[in-house]
Amino acid sequence: MSSVIGNKIKLSIFGESHGEAIGCVIDGLPNGIKLDFDEINREMARRAPGNDKTATTRKESDAPHILSGVLNGVTTGAPLAMEIKNTNTRIGDYGNLMLVPRPSHSDYPAYVKYNGNNDVRGGGHFSGRLTAPIVFAGAVAKQILKAKGITIGAHISRIGSACDHCFDKNNIRAAELDAVAHKQFAVINDESEAEMRACVEAARINGDSIGGIVECAAVGLPVGLGGNMFDTIESRLSAALFGIPAVKGVQFGAGFDFAEMLGSEANDGYEIKNGEVALLSNHNGGVLGGMSSGAPLVFSVVLKPTPSISVPQKSVNLQTMENETLVVKGRHDPCVVPRAVPVVEGITAVTLLDLMM
Amino acid sequence: MSSVIGNKIKLSIFGESHGEAIGCVIDGLPNGIKLDFDEINREMARRAPGNDKTATTRKESDAPHILSGVLNGVTTGAPLAMEIKNTNTRIGDYGNLMLVPRPSHSDYPAYVKYNGNNDVRGGGHFSGRLTAPIVFAGAVAKQILKAKGITIGAHISRIGSACDHCFDKNNIRAAELDAVAHKQFAVINDESEAEMRACVEAARINGDSIGGIVECAAVGLPVGLGGNMFDTIESRLSAALFGIPAVKGVQFGAGFDFAEMLGSEANDGYEIKNGEVALLSNHNGGVLGGMSSGAPLVFSVVLKPTPSISVPQKSVNLQTMENETLVVKGRHDPCVVPRAVPVVEGITAVTLLDLMM
Amino acid sequence: MSSVIGNKIKLSIFGESHGEAIGCVIDGLPNGIKLDFDEINREMARRAPGNDKTATTRKESDAPHILSGVLNGVTTGAPLAMEIKNTNTRIGDYGNLMLVPRPSHSDYPAYVKYNGNNDVRGGGHFSGRLTAPIVFAGAVAKQILKAKGITIGAHISRIGSACDHCFDKNNIRAAELDAVAHKQFAVINDESEAEMRACVEAARINGDSIGGIVECAAVGLPVGLGGNMFDTIESRLSAALFGIPAVKGVQFGAGFDFAEMLGSEANDGYEIKNGEVALLSNHNGGVLGGMSSGAPLVFSVVLKPTPSISVPQKSVNLQTMENETLVVKGRHDPCVVPRAVPVVEGITAVTLLDLMM
Amino acid sequence: MSSVIGNKIKLSIFGESHGEAIGCVIDGLPNGIKLDFDEINREMARRAPGNDKTATTRKESDAPHILSGVLNGVTTGAPLAMEIKNTNTRIGDYGNLMLVPRPSHSDYPAYVKYNGNNDVRGGGHFSGRLTAPIVFAGAVAKQILKAKGITIGAHISRIGSACDHCFDKNNIRAAELDAVAHKQFAVINDESEAEMRACVEAARINGDSIGGIVECAAVGLPVGLGGNMFDTIESRLSAALFGIPAVKGVQFGAGFDFAEMLGSEANDGYEIKNGEVALLSNHNGGVLGGMSSGAPLVFSVVLKPTPSISVPQKSVNLQTMENETLVVKGRHDPCVVPRAVPVVEGITAVTLLDLMM
Repeated sequence: MSSVIGNKIKLSIFGESHGEAIGCVIDGLPNGIKLDFDEINREMARRAPGNDKTATTRKESDAPHILSGVLNGVTTGAPLAMEIKNTNTRIGDYGNLMLVPRPSHSDYPAYVKYNGNNDVRGGGHFSGRLTAPIVFAGAVAKQILKAKGITIGAHISRIGSACDHCFDKNNIRAAELDAVAHKQFAVINDESEAEMRACVEAARINGDSIGGIVECAAVGLPVGLGGNMFDTIESRLSAALFGIPAVKGVQFGAGFDFAEMLGSEANDGYEIKNGEVALLSNHNGGVLGGMSSGAPLVFSVVLKPTPSISVPQKSVNLQTMENETLVVKGRHDPCVVPRAVPVVEGITAVTLLDLMM
Repeated sequence: MSSVIGNKIKLSIFGESHGEAIGCVIDGLPNGIKLDFDEINREMARRAPGNDKTATTRKESDAPHILSGVLNGVTTGAPLAMEIKNTNTRIGDYGNLMLVPRPSHSDYPAYVKYNGNNDVRGGGHFSGRLTAPIVFAGAVAKQILKAKGITIGAHISRIGSACDHCFDKNNIRAAELDAVAHKQFAVINDESEAEMRACVEAARINGDSIGGIVECAAVGLPVGLGGNMFDTIESRLSAALFGIPAVKGVQFGAGFDFAEMLGSEANDGYEIKNGEVALLSNHNGGVLGGMSSGAPLVFSVVLKPTPSISVPQKSVNLQTMENETLVVKGRHDPCVVPRAVPVVEGITAVTLLDLMM
Repeated sequence: MSSVIGNKIKLSIFGESHGEAIGCVIDGLPNGIKLDFDEINREMARRAPGNDKTATTRKESDAPHILSGVLNGVTTGAPLAMEIKNTNTRIGDYGNLMLVPRPSHSDYPAYVKYNGNNDVRGGGHFSGRLTAPIVFAGAVAKQILKAKGITIGAHISRIGSACDHCFDKNNIRAAELDAVAHKQFAVINDESEAEMRACVEAARINGDSIGGIVECAAVGLPVGLGGNMFDTIESRLSAALFGIPAVKGVQFGAGFDFAEMLGSEANDGYEIKNGEVALLSNHNGGVLGGMSSGAPLVFSVVLKPTPSISVPQKSVNLQTMENETLVVKGRHDPCVVPRAVPVVEGITAVTLLDLMM
Repeated sequence: MSSVIGNKIKLSIFGESHGEAIGCVIDGLPNGIKLDFDEINREMARRAPGNDKTATTRKESDAPHILSGVLNGVTTGAPLAMEIKNTNTRIGDYGNLMLVPRPSHSDYPAYVKYNGNNDVRGGGHFSGRLTAPIVFAGAVAKQILKAKGITIGAHISRIGSACDHCFDKNNIRAAELDAVAHKQFAVINDESEAEMRACVEAARINGDSIGGIVECAAVGLPVGLGGNMFDTIESRLSAALFGIPAVKGVQFGAGFDFAEMLGSEANDGYEIKNGEVALLSNHNGGVLGGMSSGAPLVFSVVLKPTPSISVPQKSVNLQTMENETLVVKGRHDPCVVPRAVPVVEGITAVTLLDLMM
């Protein structure tokens, strides 16, 4: 069991949703990096709850507090530890979850795995709240990558039936990624926002939730980044992305559409452009043989609908071993997809930085 | 760069397509396992080329030769090393690839990454041939898992427009997995074979290739298997699966279909059945919070069409830096999906065994 | 660069001597362990400064504060995070060290490695203060090991010319280890305390420091604990022990005395005793082929004299690149050996627990 | 259990003394290295048995055979796999060891750990023969380090009562290391050879064995090499060195002599020399705070006497659980220290290269 990831940059995440604090330790950061804390806080605000009707009304300041590894705003090269105090917890809301597991949440397997000793309040260590340290670490990593000419950005690709435009895979500019990543509601085509919000609202008023897709891209990666076989960009990124609660699928480039394509359609040819090797298309999402091809890195992840819904559900009582109907109380996100955007960017930044070191 | 995977079971893979030998070292295997070599050879034959018109006509015996770790047919607990001699190589076929990279293959980024020092013959270490050691390690792992009551099986879910039935996610039996895994052409619904073969043949006669999907399942896993955050079944399996050449997407349960689902549709309720907790559905593919839920583990991977096609393609000469038209010669698979089935099973077995240790 | 250690139990340490806080994250602890915090605090007090004339007069409460992973005093199985606030820092004392490295301290190589960005106050992340989280983690690990019948204890084997009795390697009882580990001044033979204190006091009044040896033992280990080649008890423990600042040597059993021994003298024969296999001697310190032999685990580490001494020393100014005489101010330990005893026990406990998991 | 070591350079070792082959896979080597195989073979010959009266008379050609990772004599960047066929095995010699463990050998704990399934012939995977792949990997690593200006060399520091000169820790030149590493009997002071041989011969004629010390040094390391806390040169090297069978202690610089030193004696002052920072002494063996200080890296390891001796020893029969007298037959080294010299150099080279990557 491990909430630690990375080879050269080791990210260790701790905390429970309703415990005293959540946070992380980032081991292996380069020294001498002047951190822009305003930018870090801006990133944290993108994920923080209570900012939008698509999200839970639980408000958390999510203010990261540095414990070590930074001196006068500059990284020292020692492990960077950060904590976020949990300030707004309503313990009562989760009382009945102890013995009646919420469908599709971690409750039941966690109960078995941890013999009932795990902190179930708000999902404990399995809570989506644990993505806040990921956003923090990602914000740090992004600043270091930025200095290396690498930009990462993601957007809400789909919520329910509502779709945003997709990235033009072979023609993504850093400015475009920056722009979408700075929007309050991260879509490329602003007109899709209303439709997406309607999908979420329709779910919310029914006490229901809805899933969606986040598409992410990175430009500026050197050709050949990524290791052999199990240490490739795809292996490393997917392992990191599946660490985000609710992620149930990861695909690169054309992804599952490859199943219906011919090689002659799918192959990305080459040409010489401005004296350099360029790709004629980018169905492979910028990854060939697990290594960056020079084209933009493009992938998408699917997030399932939040399992916490207020409609009555069939469950069981783990003590009496009898069937029971469950009505989940508490404040929940009808759709986690908007808040997942900076999380996907964040873990991508941490992973790419690790590969770059 | 790393062709090593695993925590307690460390699988280290070596070799190049047209080098002297390929093979692997499996470190951390339990001792005292009586290996069934006939069964191992049967698994190797499922992947071996030359057995079917959907595959390359290159024939390789793929006979695994044990170098260490086994005494009198029983594992000793020491590292198990295995080699497969490369017997059938046609070096001439690949001569012109040195400087003219095959589109969508690893050639170009590998050339940049390895400064032209990598073995390009047949893709070198990036060749699909390197999946033979995975099948071997998987065959060993399967036998150990079998003794623990765990069965793994996969089938061709889709090739082009031709689809097989899907696993009935919440009702998969071990015998069903065994049955499909023993078929020469691994489909659940035998009637889909002809349609799939037609798709492959249509591609083949045009010198083209075609993609597809493999769906895999495992039954018998204990509830709660898998670690926290980055050490979950999903993170660990996806990292392993993306190590298979041509895999471009991995999804668990409903996967990308979750994007359009409501929580009330997607959630898997519970009931008491025969005195035990059971799931009413299995949209999550047997994984909740990264841990096994008790329902069958079900996931699918997409494989892109083989990049090696014989139709002329646009490429460049890396020496002259001029555009060039490439016609790939050599013997290639018009569709790697049938041969990928035991590879998907194999790396799944190795990963699950590692998680079980 | 990594302040993380362990395979199944991952200990990640953070903090700087004069930063805001030091602490650690312990990932992978078993759930359901009821922690005895009085015992943990007693262990912390063994290492805490200001308790004895052999140590620095800097007083730190060293009160560990749990951030996560514990609910109602019981481990949850989620990462256990702990912080200790730094309350007593005198920043002025270290001002001149920035550019004039203290001989035999980390200052100079750290300056080069971190380009002058490392926190030099009190040695920053290289400070002996970072051993407090090790003692904390060790106290937790000891309680878990105790429940498995394993007891660890260490004592001051030597300071300067003053020697304590050595453990009777083949006849160590748990009660004996407990007893010595509970002494304020951890020696087996109480009569050696006065002599050792005299050695330290002689160094102290001269503004000098003195080195020594800590001998550590563990009883109750199962036969066969430890992995192959690089994962043995000896490899794993030595890697952990050299993580303690000032440790410059590690030896198991007879250690360097083996150089002068014949095989016939060194070999530990076997006999049947009470129906079980027993060793006739224990020159190997309880480790054969890297695995526990059944005899007590016995090893010793040497700690160099604290490099921080107040006698004038030859150094250089890294800015002017001129020779300079350095007089180190601040409060320092004339001998770190007494305070190192619980640190050696602690990292041993963490390492053995990791091997036991 | 793991015969794998390293972070960026992963060395995976396989084989048993009397199995079909021993060998290794080196993952992560840089590409484009032209290997000098004559030099590799020369290194192998230094360790190979049958060359000297101090060693076993078992003759093995120890010819490394490359399976992958090298093309036209140049590393490709793919995993380098190598095997050495076992040609000279006398299985009969080890028959009675199955149930009567050799004192001080791995036999008894391995029997318990592996439930009697381990290959006991010649110690199986625990055999000193497994150091041949270490020498091979070390020979490869040395060539890469050489190109970076780093030279490694070791010598027999002591056998029994016979001592060689020690390295002048602060004044070691690359040529000196090369010279001693090329000697058939690796001593600095040739006059010590006769005395050492006399010690070995005295043991040999009595069917006994004798221990010793190997001192190793490396020059040319950049200042600041090595990571924090548990990733330091000392932690990493000690973990690797204890992987060599028979090593029972590792010390850096003054090592255990530090116990009797004052800080004023032990501290290594600085001076400006030729415009650069230089050390006035090197009691710390070139490592400060776990990082290279710029002075030569100097450390020593102690090797216990070979446990295999032909004098009768007290042991037990693990089946009948009765005491038994054991007389070990077979060909054994009366002293492994001379043959351990290239092994110590080799694992040092692999470890330093890993830290350099």
